Amino acid sequence: MSELSQQIDRLDQEDVLAEFCARFVPDVLGVNYLDGNSLGRLSHDARAAIVSTIDDEWGNELIRGWEHWTELSSQLGETLGSQLLGAAPGQVVVSDSTSVNLYKAILSALSLLPDRKVLVADINDFPTDRFILEGIAASNGLELRLIASSMNEPVGPDEFAPYLDDDVAVVVMSQVNYRSGALNDLARLAYVTHSVGALLVADLSHSVGAVPIALDADDVDFAVGCTYKYVNGGPGSPAFLYARERLQSELTQPIWGWFSAADQFQMGLRYEPVPGIGRFLVGTPPVLQLAALKGALGVVCDAGIERIRQKSVIQTELAIELFDAHLAPQGFRLASPRDPAKRGGHVTFEHSEALSFSSSLFSDHRVLVDYRVPNRIRFAPSPLYTSFAQVYEGVMALSKLAAR
Amino acid sequence: MSELSQQIDRLDQEDVLAEFCARFVPDVLGVNYLDGNSLGRLSHDARAAIVSTIDDEWGNELIRGWEHWTELSSQLGETLGSQLLGAAPGQVVVSDSTSVNLYKAILSALSLLPDRKVLVADINDFPTDRFILEGIAASNGLELRLIASSMNEPVGPDEFAPYLDDDVAVVVMSQVNYRSGALNDLARLAYVTHSVGALLVADLSHSVGAVPIALDADDVDFAVGCTYKYVNGGPGSPAFLYARERLQSELTQPIWGWFSAADQFQMGLRYEPVPGIGRFLVGTPPVLQLAALKGALGVVCDAGIERIRQKSVIQTELAIELFDAHLAPQGFRLASPRDPAKRGGHVTFEHSEALSFSSSLFSDHRVLVDYRVPNRIRFAPSPLYTSFAQVYEGVMALSKLAAR
Repeated sequence: MSELSQQIDRLDQEDVLAEFCARFVPDVLGVNYLDGNSLGRLSHDARAAIVSTIDDEWGNELIRGWEHWTELSSQLGETLGSQLLGAAPGQVVVSDSTSVNLYKAILSALSLLPDRKVLVADINDFPTDRFILEGIAASNGLELRLIASSMNEPVGPDEFAPYLDDDVAVVVMSQVNYRSGALNDLARLAYVTHSVGALLVADLSHSVGAVPIALDADDVDFAVGCTYKYVNGGPGSPAFLYARERLQSELTQPIWGWFSAADQFQMGLRYEPVPGIGRFLVGTPPVLQLAALKGALGVVCDAGIERIRQKSVIQTELAIELFDAHLAPQGFRLASPRDPAKRGGHVTFEHSEALSFSSSLFSDHRVLVDYRVPNRIRFAPSPLYTSFAQVYEGVMALSKLAAR
Repeated sequence: MSELSQQIDRLDQEDVLAEFCARFVPDVLGVNYLDGNSLGRLSHDARAAIVSTIDDEWGNELIRGWEHWTELSSQLGETLGSQLLGAAPGQVVVSDSTSVNLYKAILSALSLLPDRKVLVADINDFPTDRFILEGIAASNGLELRLIASSMNEPVGPDEFAPYLDDDVAVVVMSQVNYRSGALNDLARLAYVTHSVGALLVADLSHSVGAVPIALDADDVDFAVGCTYKYVNGGPGSPAFLYARERLQSELTQPIWGWFSAADQFQMGLRYEPVPGIGRFLVGTPPVLQLAALKGALGVVCDAGIERIRQKSVIQTELAIELFDAHLAPQGFRLASPRDPAKRGGHVTFEHSEALSFSSSLFSDHRVLVDYRVPNRIRFAPSPLYTSFAQVYEGVMALSKLAAR
């Protein structure tokens, strides 16, 4: 047994999260799934929660299920807030998609700074973040400034500061870049944003469940994120929205749906939002998806974000070590930060044949990764169900393909 | 056996939809469920569809499920459009909640008439319709005119016309009133709306799956509606949005999410909406809810909306006949149109003790109805699973309670 094999064996034997693999439903093909940052795996708890909600609640309680379903959005928000987001109670709800929540958060922030005319975002941020901003800018006569970031490293204050002035209302920034995995320093971004009196909206889609988050401590104003990546809520699992408590009573949320109305079933004549974070709810929440999320989130909470992050860092370090030994010599380039403190849960390899490699990885080796234009392979171990051996096998399969 | 009992027996024996009751999962209490206009029952097909999507797709296909999940929103839109809405292809998608879709539809209509300053709605319409309009009016400096309708009868052109002039941009109107069940004439409302150059947004939440709808023929401009009432999609089932084909290329939808972007996975720099109805999509759709809806919708389509409506009319006629004989003498008032051509799928009885009767109906008789402020009991047979005997038993249980 080689020294490397022994090292990987030892990592798996000493893995305090190893038992969590059994909390997930194995797939029939035995896929080495390195795409949990696109769609997390199905857990037994998520499956049980949704089946129970269908059979015991929808099927048997019928309409009476709403006596408790109305609480799901805020219950899940509290769990996410306290366990994963570093948010004191009353600041997080779960509803709608990340895109709709971005829209609500950005316009809510704008309602607090109505005289400012500029929005700022990272040109390399996820498309929906930029598109939502572009639409808001177009319909409100605002300017959208896009930071020409380096993408493969966190957005530094020096890159960021030139785009800021006292006409900036809102800065939107992902904590982890969806392509490179670069991990932005939210505390620093919030500090610089606040230095010109603007508000920060953070997108946590690629960090929640992979990286410890401290929204309150970092002084973030608004945040949104999806729950189908590292939180494993399932395809189309609803998104969350965080709004700092001190801002809630002053802001105006743009979509005045009945789920945010005070005395909802009084069917009143005029809209009056509920006090607190509930004002960000809009329409009837997707109860079946919320049930799946509740089950899935419990698994993440049982593991604890600190242990998840510890394993994640060792796994991405291992992937980079293997990259240096086996992929770099074959013309791959690392497109992620080397410093683990600047990296989220995934690493990205560039190669001109990335698209065909991604496809062959699955067809020839049952390794499932994510291809991203133009030449990137995202390689995402998910600590709750990915072993160190799978990280090794994934890189070695890619190396074999490149050697053909 | 009394003449009435014989009549009801015969109705059940001759019911061409009787076999559809077996398509639904019976509840353990054997509830007489007359609240299908709040939340439709669980069907075996909906249950099977969601379990299969969880196990076969999410669990086994993992991320590859998106190769077909991306089509669900438009596939379901086409089925709804052709089978239930009277819409030619390319005009309906399923996504988001009814409230979010109302917001998108109203602002899209406004984008076509940017110089007009007035929105019109029915003061007795469902709260979220009025609230969404109120929010849009507030943030865009528009006037919201509320029609002082009679509520218990359809909104007539004479009631409606005084609120219209050439400053009106958008009229929002439910086809069936959520409290009285009054059925508005969409063709006539569209005609009057268009006579001042305004656009009509119809809310079909209380009519879809209960009443045949002819959006194209009636010349409706936009429509939205939920799928968890008579379509039985389950709690939080996503809503649909219809936009007339000829309007699509000119309008601007307000929430520019990546699911409506052309070349979605090119991750382009600028937002360009897809051609057609897909521009109304926003974020990641709730795949598990869409699966449940797909199963549920199949049952409705198998029955056919014409047969559903025929049975529905006979059931509400029977309910009113029983009301006249047994409830009116005890101080109940009918708060729904007597003419079946002016009535949707439910009837409403008023009584000062409506709240306590609703509660006792369930606890004492296992009859589940819906209470609505201030003094209304909504009584909604759902033709796919409600028998004529259940309509009879429901009214008689209410009569017994009132006689105590």
